Amino acid sequence: MAKENKLKIIPLGGLGEIGKNMTVHEYKDSIVIVDCGMTFPGDEMLGVDVVIPDVTYLMKNKDKIKGLLLTHGHEDHIGAIPYVLKKIDMPIYGTKLTIGLLQNKLKEHNLENANLNVVKHGDKFKLGHFEVEFIRTTHSIPDSAAIALTSPIGTVIQTGDFKVDFTPISGDVMDLNRFAELGNKGVLALLSDSTNVIRPGYTLSERTVGETFRDLFYKAEGRIIVATFASNIYRIQQIIDAAELNDRKVVISGRSMVNNINVANELGYLRVNPETLIEINDMNKYNKKEIVIITTGSQGEPMSALTRIANNEHRKIELMSDDMVIISATPIPGNEITVSKVINKLLEKGTNVIYEALADIHVSGHACQEELKLIHTLVKPKYFIPVHGETRHLRHHADISYQLGTPRENIFILENGQSLEFTRDSANLGQMVQAGNILVDGLGVGDVGNIVLRDRKHLSEDGLIVVVVTINKQTGAVESGPDIVSRGFVYVRESEELMEEVRKIVKQTLDTCEAKKISDWSTIKSNIRDDLRTYLYTTLKRNPMILPIIMEV
Amino acid sequence: MAKENKLKIIPLGGLGEIGKNMTVHEYKDSIVIVDCGMTFPGDEMLGVDVVIPDVTYLMKNKDKIKGLLLTHGHEDHIGAIPYVLKKIDMPIYGTKLTIGLLQNKLKEHNLENANLNVVKHGDKFKLGHFEVEFIRTTHSIPDSAAIALTSPIGTVIQTGDFKVDFTPISGDVMDLNRFAELGNKGVLALLSDSTNVIRPGYTLSERTVGETFRDLFYKAEGRIIVATFASNIYRIQQIIDAAELNDRKVVISGRSMVNNINVANELGYLRVNPETLIEINDMNKYNKKEIVIITTGSQGEPMSALTRIANNEHRKIELMSDDMVIISATPIPGNEITVSKVINKLLEKGTNVIYEALADIHVSGHACQEELKLIHTLVKPKYFIPVHGETRHLRHHADISYQLGTPRENIFILENGQSLEFTRDSANLGQMVQAGNILVDGLGVGDVGNIVLRDRKHLSEDGLIVVVVTINKQTGAVESGPDIVSRGFVYVRESEELMEEVRKIVKQTLDTCEAKKISDWSTIKSNIRDDLRTYLYTTLKRNPMILPIIMEV
Repeated sequence: MAKENKLKIIPLGGLGEIGKNMTVHEYKDSIVIVDCGMTFPGDEMLGVDVVIPDVTYLMKNKDKIKGLLLTHGHEDHIGAIPYVLKKIDMPIYGTKLTIGLLQNKLKEHNLENANLNVVKHGDKFKLGHFEVEFIRTTHSIPDSAAIALTSPIGTVIQTGDFKVDFTPISGDVMDLNRFAELGNKGVLALLSDSTNVIRPGYTLSERTVGETFRDLFYKAEGRIIVATFASNIYRIQQIIDAAELNDRKVVISGRSMVNNINVANELGYLRVNPETLIEINDMNKYNKKEIVIITTGSQGEPMSALTRIANNEHRKIELMSDDMVIISATPIPGNEITVSKVINKLLEKGTNVIYEALADIHVSGHACQEELKLIHTLVKPKYFIPVHGETRHLRHHADISYQLGTPRENIFILENGQSLEFTRDSANLGQMVQAGNILVDGLGVGDVGNIVLRDRKHLSEDGLIVVVVTINKQTGAVESGPDIVSRGFVYVRESEELMEEVRKIVKQTLDTCEAKKISDWSTIKSNIRDDLRTYLYTTLKRNPMILPIIMEV
Repeated sequence: MAKENKLKIIPLGGLGEIGKNMTVHEYKDSIVIVDCGMTFPGDEMLGVDVVIPDVTYLMKNKDKIKGLLLTHGHEDHIGAIPYVLKKIDMPIYGTKLTIGLLQNKLKEHNLENANLNVVKHGDKFKLGHFEVEFIRTTHSIPDSAAIALTSPIGTVIQTGDFKVDFTPISGDVMDLNRFAELGNKGVLALLSDSTNVIRPGYTLSERTVGETFRDLFYKAEGRIIVATFASNIYRIQQIIDAAELNDRKVVISGRSMVNNINVANELGYLRVNPETLIEINDMNKYNKKEIVIITTGSQGEPMSALTRIANNEHRKIELMSDDMVIISATPIPGNEITVSKVINKLLEKGTNVIYEALADIHVSGHACQEELKLIHTLVKPKYFIPVHGETRHLRHHADISYQLGTPRENIFILENGQSLEFTRDSANLGQMVQAGNILVDGLGVGDVGNIVLRDRKHLSEDGLIVVVVTINKQTGAVESGPDIVSRGFVYVRESEELMEEVRKIVKQTLDTCEAKKISDWSTIKSNIRDDLRTYLYTTLKRNPMILPIIMEV
């Protein structure tokens, strides 16, 4: 009897982390991929711009790849595509807005010939051995979808990011009925969003934020500046609605905000009177009570429009004393301090600032516990795999699945690279494939690794001292130096004595080496390093990087 | 008529920031200081260990200083004392525990001859022209006090950090009656804690945490490990109480935890059966159900005991599968990610982790809005100065004071260094004195400034390239080099081509200089820098620090 064919699910990102979502589904000669996201570097990844998944496994199995399916247009689901497409050409499928946003992004990377395919919710099509279906969900960006993948082994549903918003701003509600239908037919496995699993109850509807906007806009005496996520088209819709209700024009500021609003508007995802949107240069033609500015910078990003406004560095927008600034977002963990700084800067200028602690100007885009239970209950999966979360989220989600009746042995907490293999009536851990973080720094993809990061960390904490000596090739005698150059160590003008002392110590080391007839350069260098390190640690309790360089003439 | 004498209040720290609290009160030839705290460096202060207030103003007025008064023993109120005492010798006054904790700290800095004076709540004494009174408050450390300073101009009350805990763990409740008495007599100015001013309502009593401990301890099947702030003696008391109730022994881990518990125990601030505390080495003599470990690391600090336990790097404590870890703290803004990392690490090892989102295992030590209103209402100050807060906190507190009836012109939002001058019936902004951050890095106090930090930031983001060339003094010809050394830039082994290209570019630059007969070294260096920078930015979009060094022989 031939070996039974198995369905493999291999997460390449999004497990044990928030971000960088990417999942491989493989059956026989067919691979389909769900999402291809990036994440932002952690504090320890100094100087890194973006982190993407390691796709070595896909490079090795290029021939099997039938397509990449996108659940929605957020960076943590589409942000790695430009980097991956340069290595793996493949057709990409997504709903209209998702593909529109991706197109925009690919243009910036000069990748205009990608094979992009617009899919509608409810569409079903074959990709190799898989039947693919996009199911409507609700999230903090329109046109989001869950994806059902049916192979001969069974149906797997991947929720993508979602919340259950019964009163979404535009478009229909989540297609709960389809989840129920599939549940009735029998679902092999559910991979579900764990981002908010620690929060009890329900996430509030996006609509609640609109009420706050209407109240605030009604009261405002001067201009209104609202910072939010550029991708939150619903939020932007509600700001525009509140503006129109109060006879205010809308100005857009910030590159990504302008881009996203253009795409959403062109594709019909925004309802806006043609005369509402005005150019930033025309702002002065209006009374300040007639202006709303929608801007980026809700996370306190240093180069964003809001931060530049707060620091008086924006070329076109200068703060006025009766401006009202609304930060319609919650700080993503790690951004609390940069957001506080912007708030404080604005307040110092006398601006009225409304932020999350003061008013209901933000709701999450992710499902809380009761919503997660709802989907789980409708789908009734045989196997459950919590995804999109740190370990604590995955464990919690696993516990909820267990409470809902899934046997412990049918719940799998995976890690990136850990494959799971299904037959029709079994699931078992399979091989570990290569997975991890690829660091992008400028145009370099993957050329910054642990050694480089360790050096950057060392340099950032104590700076460096370069010691240069010229030595005569024949005689071994010092021809010139030691010259000492330091950066990031001490303020040199006020530390001349110290630098003189450093020079003396290196001289002594060189003398000792000469006396001991040590002519091996690496030994001389390591002696210089050791003697200097000891001296500096004893006198200053500091440990700069020491770079001895020997030139021979 | 002689010029009227004025009372001056000068904040040297704690305004526009959380931490580094220090306030100067000056009348004629008398200066008394309230608190002398440190703060932790911001993200931009790379490599800095501690930040202390600039005390130049006090150095210039040394002769007037009558004493330093301490409200309580937290680092942000006493942490800068070792550094300041080295420059300014002065008598220090505080309650018993505060002085005990300070003594411990001074010992570590080899400052054992300080003039320390233990004061009791209710004590009144003269310091120069000031009458000083310590008033009992409640906070997350025992023995906290507000300070009333009466000069011929009037009485000023500085609350220090406080909450109104009607059921404190030990000791008496806050002396609200004394605040009321002083209020009735007439208070010139109130300086009040703004840390929690954005939160409505009341801070819960510390006692509520004890209930959670009792429930959790009752259920635990294995060892219990509780991480909390080493200074929160009440919390530690409640952990000990819950341990004794459940017949468990207590092990202390972490240097600062051991130190603080020793001081508190010696001075009678802990009720603990002598047989409850056991040595860490004796832990194995007991069943795991008989053990509670109290440890540091509730903020995910990389070197703390809890982080070492989570990483399997603790010499004496190895995780067991049925350990319960309780993180009895909330992440201080900026620490969210390090705390999450520790939680995830523990969960990966299968440990049961209880943290703030899951159970009521922490309450704040600072007053929320209703408590702040209570103190303000009892004291009825003529002038109000919100302190201990970022701009947003100070503004909010000012608004509350206004709502309570203080005229806007009697409310002063100061900044560090901005003096406020009082007569009996007026208050006006006075001169600005020198104030700011002094950075402590290792043993160096103040030798790391903006240039050093800017270089560290540059190095941390893109690393550096050192270019060394030896040039003949007489002929100007290149004798050896260019040699290229890079650190924190690219992984050199995989970038040999790039480094070869770098060498070529420097050679070209040197040839061009020679051809153009440029012999001025600084021009040669700046040409090397420019050419290399352009090349690297074009090919890699990176901007490493470039250090050209010319040696002459």
